[in-house]
Amino acid sequence: MLSLEIQHTDGKARAGVLSTPHGPVQTPVFMPVGTAGSVKGVTPEQLTAAGSQMILANTYHMMLRPGGDTVAKLGGLHAMMGWEGPILTDSGGFQVFSLAHMRSIDDEKVVFRSHVDGNTVELTPRKCIEIQRQLGADAIMQLDECPPGNASFEQVASAVDRSILWARECKCAWREDTESDQSLFGIQQGGVFEDLRARSAEALVELDLPGYAVGGLSVGEGHQEMARVLDAADSQFPADRPRYLMGVGEPRDILAAVQRGIDMFDCVLPTRNARNAFAFTWGGPLRMRNAKWTDQAVPIDEDCNCYTCRNFSRGTIRHLFMAREMLGPTLVTIHNLHFFAEFMSAIRESIAVGTLESDAQRWVCGMYPAAQEPADEN
Amino acid sequence: MLSLEIQHTDGKARAGVLSTPHGPVQTPVFMPVGTAGSVKGVTPEQLTAAGSQMILANTYHMMLRPGGDTVAKLGGLHAMMGWEGPILTDSGGFQVFSLAHMRSIDDEKVVFRSHVDGNTVELTPRKCIEIQRQLGADAIMQLDECPPGNASFEQVASAVDRSILWARECKCAWREDTESDQSLFGIQQGGVFEDLRARSAEALVELDLPGYAVGGLSVGEGHQEMARVLDAADSQFPADRPRYLMGVGEPRDILAAVQRGIDMFDCVLPTRNARNAFAFTWGGPLRMRNAKWTDQAVPIDEDCNCYTCRNFSRGTIRHLFMAREMLGPTLVTIHNLHFFAEFMSAIRESIAVGTLESDAQRWVCGMYPAAQEPADEN
Repeated sequence: MLSLEIQHTDGKARAGVLSTPHGPVQTPVFMPVGTAGSVKGVTPEQLTAAGSQMILANTYHMMLRPGGDTVAKLGGLHAMMGWEGPILTDSGGFQVFSLAHMRSIDDEKVVFRSHVDGNTVELTPRKCIEIQRQLGADAIMQLDECPPGNASFEQVASAVDRSILWARECKCAWREDTESDQSLFGIQQGGVFEDLRARSAEALVELDLPGYAVGGLSVGEGHQEMARVLDAADSQFPADRPRYLMGVGEPRDILAAVQRGIDMFDCVLPTRNARNAFAFTWGGPLRMRNAKWTDQAVPIDEDCNCYTCRNFSRGTIRHLFMAREMLGPTLVTIHNLHFFAEFMSAIRESIAVGTLESDAQRWVCGMYPAAQEPADEN
Repeated sequence: MLSLEIQHTDGKARAGVLSTPHGPVQTPVFMPVGTAGSVKGVTPEQLTAAGSQMILANTYHMMLRPGGDTVAKLGGLHAMMGWEGPILTDSGGFQVFSLAHMRSIDDEKVVFRSHVDGNTVELTPRKCIEIQRQLGADAIMQLDECPPGNASFEQVASAVDRSILWARECKCAWREDTESDQSLFGIQQGGVFEDLRARSAEALVELDLPGYAVGGLSVGEGHQEMARVLDAADSQFPADRPRYLMGVGEPRDILAAVQRGIDMFDCVLPTRNARNAFAFTWGGPLRMRNAKWTDQAVPIDEDCNCYTCRNFSRGTIRHLFMAREMLGPTLVTIHNLHFFAEFMSAIRESIAVGTLESDAQRWVCGMYPAAQEPADEN
């Protein structure tokens, strides 16, 4: 089971150690996403070298291909992925509502058409837990209903109530395996509506779960609205449980969330943007296909100590992207994952010395120069 | 400059050490191909871990993109590719005749249309050496004319004469840089015609070059014909110079060539086949997309010590290919490169103890089970 030891606080921000069956994790932590059983473009060895501590895999993708039975026969996700550190699996809810062709939803189940083979698939709270048991991650998620970003109050309220119902059923199914060392997280829904967020949190906390996730954000509501919703998180969730903001990875959003008491993050941003030749730096983004790098023998970031920056120039990386070599995406993925690991490490140190507010302001100024777009709009 | 120290012989086969400006190479050696400045799918760190000693880059590809000037500004191929070991560059001749749209050829030059941007490009023996000087490889190749596999005696004879002329011009251009530590190889042509091969070798040996390459094989003539042509190689080339069979990588062809006194090989086979989910083993090929691996928790080869086999099952690798994850090609590339490094190492040991003939027979029986096709027909 997971346990969180808070070592430092700075305002609402917390830095500590999350103990897991697969070793300790320094928090706040950013988890790279291994959608289909692989963090795209890198080996687990490269992930570790880049400083990644804990990764996420998608239950939705793994249940459709290769299937929970196969993952179990291959020894579970850790053995299958060749990753010895902790893993978190989401419940599949988000992907069902965003990727699949939905057929129907009621309080019992959600029925959808697989994007892999077109087959009709049924997912229930119990099945969601059973598949995640086969996957064997350290942290598992309840099945939840994720309304779209533009949903009405009534739609969001209905999703909150159904997600609470499903949280109870997931807890029952999870508790049946008394020897499990997996930790179940409840997922708060409620969109941008304060009272729905409160209702959702209250019901989940009553279930006394090992961890709590904030879902349904980063769906178009914008930075300010996200921060406003998170203002209440610190008072809504118990201090001794990890708090996980799902799907958020834009550095300024991470900073705002950490300052509101969030401990865990995941996002495809560093890996997906890397494959699009977009490199993160403390001074703002670099687009590696830009012709101005053609003859530049300097690395992406001269102060960066990642494998990519120690061995490759901007000119080489641009060339690799222009020539469509796999090594281009791999090298920028390594750099971006290292950047995110360093960024989270800097946040933890800043919390420890109590300077997060001023550090965060400085970092945001550096990373979002007025002339450039934020990363998530590319 | 290169120098070859022969340490063991077994029949015509030789095992030794090739000294290069970037360190020693155990021979016979197989060189993975880094076509466009990257051995596809792996980092230099992974190449080294897989046991690769020396790699090849394509002058044709590098001269078209990013261009010799840019490579020079980025510090040369070694710095650009992040590879500290020795590099060999081919002359571009083979690619001009196989990839480009040829416009014209005479004794002065070959003119072709770039496959990258459609521009008309002119390549002369002098320009070929100048570009290879910018690239900075340890071993460089003369410009040669490569007739197709079905060329007539007259066509091949003309290509031999032109290639001899170009070898002389390349030597002049190479010698002008008196401080160069690059080593120029002449390229023997002559197709499957013994007297043309002899004429080609004689003229090249007269030029007293640091190394000699056998070109124009593996173009459809078949295993037996290749072996027959190579029967004369040992007597055609001086014993103290490295002999390089261009573009050959099928294990049984490598064995036949080593037994006829060849020291160096290159081929896209281990890397290209890896991207097509084809894994080399001592017991014959495995097609990793095959459904029979779905639930198999064992590695590609239980006796293999590569990163892939130490950490990933056949089931995982199959899944990664089915899900089109980049990691699938990367993992099989690592395995195949490790297999080729181990294969060459076994050949060297076998030469040292004088058992190459019987070992080679046993290996070929294991690698080419009657029921399966040889790797190069896939």
